[in-house]
Amino acid sequence: MAWDVLFTNVHLATMANGDSGGYGEILDAAIAVRDGRIAWLGPRAALPDGQAATVHDGGGCWLTPGLIDCHTHIVHAGSRSGEFEARLNGATYEDIARAGGGIMSTVRATRAASADELLAQSLPRVHSLLAEGVTTIEIKSGYGLDLENEAKMLRVARRIGRELPVQVATTFLGAHALPPEYAGRADDYIDAVCAMIAPLAGEGLVDAVDAFCERIGFSHEQTERVFQAAHAHGLPVKLHAEQLSDQRGAELVARYDGLSADHLEHLSSEGIAAMAAAGTVAVLLPGAYYFLRDTNAPPVSALRALGVPMAVSTDCNPGTSPMTSVLLAMNMACTLWRLTPQEALAGCTVHAARALGRHDQVGTLAVGKRADFALWRIDRPGELAYAIGFNPCRGVVNAGVWRSPRGL
Amino acid sequence: MAWDVLFTNVHLATMANGDSGGYGEILDAAIAVRDGRIAWLGPRAALPDGQAATVHDGGGCWLTPGLIDCHTHIVHAGSRSGEFEARLNGATYEDIARAGGGIMSTVRATRAASADELLAQSLPRVHSLLAEGVTTIEIKSGYGLDLENEAKMLRVARRIGRELPVQVATTFLGAHALPPEYAGRADDYIDAVCAMIAPLAGEGLVDAVDAFCERIGFSHEQTERVFQAAHAHGLPVKLHAEQLSDQRGAELVARYDGLSADHLEHLSSEGIAAMAAAGTVAVLLPGAYYFLRDTNAPPVSALRALGVPMAVSTDCNPGTSPMTSVLLAMNMACTLWRLTPQEALAGCTVHAARALGRHDQVGTLAVGKRADFALWRIDRPGELAYAIGFNPCRGVVNAGVWRSPRGL
Ligand SMILES: [Zn+2]
Ligand SMILES: [Zn+2]
Repeated sequence: MAWDVLFTNVHLATMANGDSGGYGEILDAAIAVRDGRIAWLGPRAALPDGQAATVHDGGGCWLTPGLIDCHTHIVHAGSRSGEFEARLNGATYEDIARAGGGIMSTVRATRAASADELLAQSLPRVHSLLAEGVTTIEIKSGYGLDLENEAKMLRVARRIGRELPVQVATTFLGAHALPPEYAGRADDYIDAVCAMIAPLAGEGLVDAVDAFCERIGFSHEQTERVFQAAHAHGLPVKLHAEQLSDQRGAELVARYDGLSADHLEHLSSEGIAAMAAAGTVAVLLPGAYYFLRDTNAPPVSALRALGVPMAVSTDCNPGTSPMTSVLLAMNMACTLWRLTPQEALAGCTVHAARALGRHDQVGTLAVGKRADFALWRIDRPGELAYAIGFNPCRGVVNAGVWRSPRGL
Repeated sequence: MAWDVLFTNVHLATMANGDSGGYGEILDAAIAVRDGRIAWLGPRAALPDGQAATVHDGGGCWLTPGLIDCHTHIVHAGSRSGEFEARLNGATYEDIARAGGGIMSTVRATRAASADELLAQSLPRVHSLLAEGVTTIEIKSGYGLDLENEAKMLRVARRIGRELPVQVATTFLGAHALPPEYAGRADDYIDAVCAMIAPLAGEGLVDAVDAFCERIGFSHEQTERVFQAAHAHGLPVKLHAEQLSDQRGAELVARYDGLSADHLEHLSSEGIAAMAAAGTVAVLLPGAYYFLRDTNAPPVSALRALGVPMAVSTDCNPGTSPMTSVLLAMNMACTLWRLTPQEALAGCTVHAARALGRHDQVGTLAVGKRADFALWRIDRPGELAYAIGFNPCRGVVNAGVWRSPRGL
């Protein structure tokens, strides 16, 4: 055996069995990398004779798959902290809308920003995730709402993937909100969104297509038109579904073989059954539930009972979840919604990979997968979801290359 | 003017006006230090002629008083992540108690640990706070529950203050829980607690005395005996009060001129009035409320209306608030309890200082105060409480000495 890199003196949580097999623990283990992929893993005592160009002593850390944040709006300009503060000082939503607040303030700021400015404003948030062992991030567009600015957002997302040690999955979310220039003409805007897919996809900017199906977003029928356009270009779909009301979005996205339905606070049993049948992942976003003081939890027990894979993500966005900590999303999923710590970790690894259609590449420790790891100074994997506001990450490995998160 | 250190190109949030005067903002300011204390502050344009041995360019950061975490149990051994995980996997509180869990597992681990082990286990948690601009921490005993182990905890707390760039206020919390060797003899244990005060205070280990007044803790009458012993030794008191039920603890601690009453989810209007009259600070602990899924919020509006100073703290402890982020405590206070961002920042600066009896030394930016600062890469002070799991701290200053939090 000839390896590029060997990590020894680690405990592995392979997450290779999904929910059923616990963490897939291998104590006192080693894991070897060749050509950026996992070439061998197992108990250190079973390590085959071999040579590695580089050997890292993991110092007794736990080593997990690199974390995956599978639902973010992390590329955006401007802050909504003023709006947050105004509301706590007594302003109503109407006051804030009159003052130009809400999602349209983020659209204005994002449109006004150059690509460099947009990148510069987004980087600190991305670094916050990377410091927690995140190696894959999904990034949505949706604050440009015209071809030029949606393309700008997606190009910035791709730049993050090129310039930082992270893999980026891009999602086109043109159907996020109705831009002011289309006021009263939502169907016309959906036509425009469908027409954006060809040029954006042609530039290689789109890994998946998403929409916001909601009374204050787009209708079931409008969403379906976006999905049809996505499929016409061979792109998989996902959906902001059932966050504020049941729009039968989960059934719709399942019917289109969707990767995921996200939020799901008002998901019906029909929606759960459709997702289970289609293998659509339920992406749970406790940050938005927390920040909005929602009281209607997604149906975790029913999702669990029907074997719907549950992912957990930050939903990082300035209006409803200004959160840049996957570990905290894991804790909130456990504390607020009673996921187990093992489900929470699966939700940020194996199931998050599935929500991005990348489960053949990342999300578990298995031979042939990309060597994206996080190393943790913890005594047991359950500590990751237990702590609140604590980061025990002591190293991150991207395609076999070690870096310390503190160096970011 | 001859100064040791001068910070320029910063915006100040002096917090010098308490709640009434906003953040005490001074834009484009400078702040000068001599002998570890603030010697001058104001707009940069008004800077008097003078020389400083060292000049730091703050790069346009906001500079606030160093944060103060005024209620922690951060010194302890062992983790309760296994208990957290067992409960989420269906174990009842009885199952956990039978398996030796609960607070007594922390007592056993803390008693079993050497002082060096106790320090080593506590340091990562302390570093997590310091990275967020914390310059003063209160640390309670209360997992030793005998003289030797309470002294061990408090000595470790003092060592943290000597060995790290942080000021430590120690609180003797012998009356935290009934140790097993006193089962059925709570009054005898209170005698023992009262008798511990003299030797601990004699060794300089006690800045204040605290108790847990609750149905599952100690009675009103037992608490009062602890307070009498504290006063006999000239020590100020504070109290874990009204967390789970109204024990009239706030009235009791106010009657003893207490520094603070902490938790207060079940505080009565009589308790509020007593605190207002005595100047007792309300220390709000949203981490425990969140982690326990409590639904009974402390009476924030009534506290505000009567002018009771509100502090905000992590309550860092392994059983009910495994939280090591003051910024997150600020966000939770706003999100869950509708404090304003300005009240939240006052709660971790000026009012937290008052809860420790140190408001003449720290907690605001004013001439003569200790030069303990935090520098933030933010556009406005309201951002500190808005973000969830994001740390914009770019520098910490202890008695005029600058350090970067990333270097920790
Ligand atoms: Zn979203
Ligand atoms: Zn406490």
